[in-house]
This record gives sequence, C-alpha cells and structure tokens, in this order.
Amino acid sequence: MQFSKLDDISALCRNLPCGHPNAAEAAGRRQQALTKPPGSLGRLEELATWLARWQGRERPRLDRVAINVFASSHGIAARGVSAYPAEVTAQMVANFSRGGAAINQIARLAGAELKVEAIELDRPTRDFTMAAAMDADEFLRAFDIGFRSVPEDCDLLAVGEMGIGNTTVAATLCAALVGGAARWAGRGTGVDDEGLARKRGTILAALEFHRDILGDPLLVAVRMGGRELAAIAGSVLAARSRSIPVLLDGFVATAAVLPLTRLSASALDHCRAGHVSAEAGHRMLLQELKLEPLLDLGMRLGEASGAGTAILLLRTALACHNGMATFTEAGVSDRA
Amino acid sequence: MQFSKLDDISALCRNLPCGHPNAAEAAGRRQQALTKPPGSLGRLEELATWLARWQGRERPRLDRVAINVFASSHGIAARGVSAYPAEVTAQMVANFSRGGAAINQIARLAGAELKVEAIELDRPTRDFTMAAAMDADEFLRAFDIGFRSVPEDCDLLAVGEMGIGNTTVAATLCAALVGGAARWAGRGTGVDDEGLARKRGTILAALEFHRDILGDPLLVAVRMGGRELAAIAGSVLAARSRSIPVLLDGFVATAAVLPLTRLSASALDHCRAGHVSAEAGHRMLLQELKLEPLLDLGMRLGEASGAGTAILLLRTALACHNGMATFTEAGVSDRA
Repeated sequence: MQFSKLDDISALCRNLPCGHPNAAEAAGRRQQALTKPPGSLGRLEELATWLARWQGRERPRLDRVAINVFASSHGIAARGVSAYPAEVTAQMVANFSRGGAAINQIARLAGAELKVEAIELDRPTRDFTMAAAMDADEFLRAFDIGFRSVPEDCDLLAVGEMGIGNTTVAATLCAALVGGAARWAGRGTGVDDEGLARKRGTILAALEFHRDILGDPLLVAVRMGGRELAAIAGSVLAARSRSIPVLLDGFVATAAVLPLTRLSASALDHCRAGHVSAEAGHRMLLQELKLEPLLDLGMRLGEASGAGTAILLLRTALACHNGMATFTEAGVSDRA
Repeated sequence: MQFSKLDDISALCRNLPCGHPNAAEAAGRRQQALTKPPGSLGRLEELATWLARWQGRERPRLDRVAINVFASSHGIAARGVSAYPAEVTAQMVANFSRGGAAINQIARLAGAELKVEAIELDRPTRDFTMAAAMDADEFLRAFDIGFRSVPEDCDLLAVGEMGIGNTTVAATLCAALVGGAARWAGRGTGVDDEGLARKRGTILAALEFHRDILGDPLLVAVRMGGRELAAIAGSVLAARSRSIPVLLDGFVATAAVLPLTRLSASALDHCRAGHVSAEAGHRMLLQELKLEPLLDLGMRLGEASGAGTAILLLRTALACHNGMATFTEAGVSDRA
C-alpha cells in the first residue's frame, strides 16, 4: 500500500506537479491561428489549452479515457436519510456490471472505459453521529484502492460514485470544512420533507460529536466521510501525481476532494467540474472551490453521469483544436 | 417554388402540426421505469420525451441528423459593422467545403451530415438603412432554398449561418420585432468600441427608415433581414411541417426564426436552443422566446457550432432513454 499513514497524503499534497505551461502556451497560440475569431469557441478553447497543460502536448488526445465509479455503504443510511433502501447500492453495482445503468450508456457513447469498484459493501461505515465513520486504516485502504485504480497511460479520468446515504456524507464534509451547518442538505435521490429534516439533524449531530477535529481536513474525511469518497480523493490525487486531467462529477464527488484543497490550494488545478448538479449543495461547493461547471442540466444521479456527459465536450474541444485549418492554411483573411 | 407570396408563409404558420403527445407520454412513462430516481437525469429526460413527441416514437432515434448552414452577403457590411472584411464569407464557405472549419469537426464528431448553402454571395442585400434589404421575391427565393434543404427522412435538423455583418442584421430584427432599440447590438466577431457604435447607429437608422412596417413580421424579415436568415426560417418551417425536431444555434439563427413566432405563438415548439452564445443579444432573445439553452459555453462563432455540439447531448439523452434497464429488468428495489 502506497499510504501507511495520513501524513503520507499530506506530504504528497505539498509536492504536486503543476503541468506543462509551455504546452498550454503552444496550444493557446494554435487557437489564435485557427479559422475563427479569437475566443469565439469560448470554453472549448480553454478546455483544449487545459488538456494541453496537463498532457504536455500542444495537440492533446483522448485515446484512452477512464471512468472510475466507486461504491460503498454508510452507517448513517439507517437514519432514514435516503428515499431508497440501503440494499440499492449493491443492486445498482450489479446493474453496472450488466450494463443497465445510465453510466454504462454514457461511457459507451463517450468512448470511455468504465470501471466500477465496490468497496466493502457488506461493511458499512459506522454512524458518524455517534462514532468515527472509519479509523485511519480503513480510510487509507479505500484511498489506496482509488489511488491504484487510475490506469498509468490514460489521457483523462472521470470520477463518480454510488452509495445510498452519501449526499448526507457529502453535506456533512462540506459543513465541517466550509461552515454553514445544515444548509448543505438537499433532497438527494428525492427525500420528502421529513427525510430532509433527518438529514439536517444528522449533519448537526455529526458536527457536534466531532467538534474537536473540524480543523483537520484528513481526520474529517476519515471520521465523517465514506469509503467511496476516500477512493475518489485517492484517484484524483493519483491522476495529479501523473499529470492526468480529471473531470469531477456531482456533489458527492466534489465533496470527496474538498479535503485535498485544504492540504494544497492548487490541489484541483488538474480538475474541471463536469457539471453542476441539481443537488442543493453542489453549486455552493463549486463556488467555494472556484470551479466553473461545464454543464448545467439539472442532473442529480451521480454514477459519474455528469462527468461522463462532459467528456463529449472535451472531445468537441479537441476535434476543433486538432482538426481545424489555420487562417494561413485556408487562405482566409484575418481581421482588418 | 412552394411559396409565391408572403401570405403563403402566414397560411402555413396558421396550420402547424403539433407532434405526437401519445409518444411523448409513453416516453415519459419509460423514463419513470428506468433504474434512476425519477427526474435525476434532469434535462436529458425532457429531451428524450421532446424527441419522442416530434418523431412519434416512444424510443426516438438519431440515425440521420442534418446540419444545414446558410451563407449570404449583406449590404450593411460596408458600414464597418464587423471586425472582418466582407470577403471572409466566401472564404469561409470554401473552408467549409475543404473541411477546415469548426463545424466540419463538430459535425463529424456528432455523426451529422453537414450541408452548406451559399446564397447569392456575389449579390449582397441592399443597405437597409436606406433601402429595403430585399424585395418579397428575393426573400421568398432564399426562404424556399431553406425549405427545400431539409432531408425528408432526417431525425433531427440543426441550423446555422455564416455572413459577415449578420449580427447587425439579427440585432435589427430583434429591435424591430421585440423593441429595445440598439440594446441588441453586441461585439459579433469582435468589433471595437467604434465598430459597436456603428452597429448601434445602423440599427437606429434602420428602425427609423422602416418605421411604417415594424408591425408586420414578414415585411420586417424581407426589408431588414438577410438571405441566410430567410433560409433558416424556411428550413425550420419545413422541419415543422414534417414534424422533424430542430436545434437552433446562436443569436443570428434564433433571430432568423423570431418572425415565425409572431405568426404563430407555437411556431418553435419543435425547436430547442442548442446553446446561449456570448453575443450580447442572444440571452435576451432566448428569454423573450422562453427557450432554455442546453449549453452555456461562451461560444459566439455561428456556423451551427453551438447547435452541433448540443447534438451530443441529444445522443446522450437517447443512449440513456433507449439503453437503460428498468427497475423490474434489473431487479433493483424502487423507492420505499
């Protein structure tokens, strides 16, 4: 295992690679030369130079794209914080293997390899209103699964999750690390007003129980987090250590990497937010992290469905960046 | 020619087909049965039922997708309202034929057939600050080219344009038919402050010169419009008459169909806005037309580049709609 103690993660975060600025500059110059008014492809231009920066290529590629989805179980699911029973997590993992879920269809369309890792589904974390969700070893094991899940040679990673109860986990992490108490609670898979009240109560109880460790981002991730969130953080850090660009998915996937930003302010420079979900806290969290989402389609499914859809925008950006003619090549008059 | 007088267009607009509500309802029921919380695919669910409504199929398809781009020349280009010389229109049409423009790359990625129709490039419309841009026959000829351009059997149409000076034309149409005078002027391909002032002056002069016909939407389209805008209106009406769904592109393409909405309030029910462009007037125009854009990426290129990118979102919507397992098929527990 790469990580034997929490400090190994902090140490890695203090020494992150920062991409290839020269490749980004070369890509930016190429964008200026293509047959279009400068800037007229908007965000697609920025995406091409961002991919260039992390891949270290003036003309980036998306030959191998990985979508990694992590699933696990949560003790707080027993508190009635979801519209669905906890058994749905394992049933959906089976649905992923048979190819019946949304992310299976999206991954195929986006030309991505989907890997689903179910982490100790039959061993839920402990209810963090009255105990630590995990101990450090349990957290590190999940983090390491994520870290090792990233293919060495992939051109892009998209991350997502499945876990009944995990929007409550995400909201609790946000409340612990950003502040704002129960305002992070949303309806998740669609809880009613009573369910929403139970989510708020769960968050407040957790903040009170763990009040002594709220200043330590990794301890917060251990004691108030979940295994799929730990694995997402591990995979995003692995991608960074290899300069692989990352698309984040929705509220849970973004909350999963929030602790990393408390260890290094630039921890997410290799990431873009694939979308902003309809889950209440996601837009606030993206604003907190200064991430501008690529899509805003009211999706709130998880499974990397928003990030997976955004892969198609990256393909669009690169199709233009790599395939268009320059003014000189096309014999088109430039600005007067 | 299908249209020998302007009244033929008005007559067609009074008798538009309204899709297949039964297919839309069946598609909506299918969405409820798929393995996801109801509504959790957000806009992708609405897009699937919208396609079902117009195609008349519970499971819509996108086997044949047409992108039609129309180009023409504008007398008002001589007034210095663009950052580029007027010859760029013909040069870009040549770039389209050689496959070097953004829309060539986007069409290939989106699996769409691109057709570019250059309409009398060597015969610019007249400067509408001092004359009628076209007479009714000139307008009807361009409208008819658009009407006949739509493949009978296509599953989706996306429309766009190229024409140096045409954001000024679009802004003038909006000012004439919605009000608000010169607030519709934007920087187009990137004019400086003086260019923007010339655009505003052009719009105001046109409103004054044509003040007697501002209440007649078709006469406005004839005298203050452009040939590529007429062709777009024709193609969108042809699609409607065959119940083919349409993705609109940016400010110019949307302004082109504005006159149709003044002939029939439901004229754009078969349309979705592929994106909202960075051109100043587009967001206002979409609000006026109650069209919610699918993408907001700061694009402002035209050429159907925004609509073409949005085709990928429709493919995502249908991949999920047609490919996902239902709760029953997958053996996943539904809500408690």
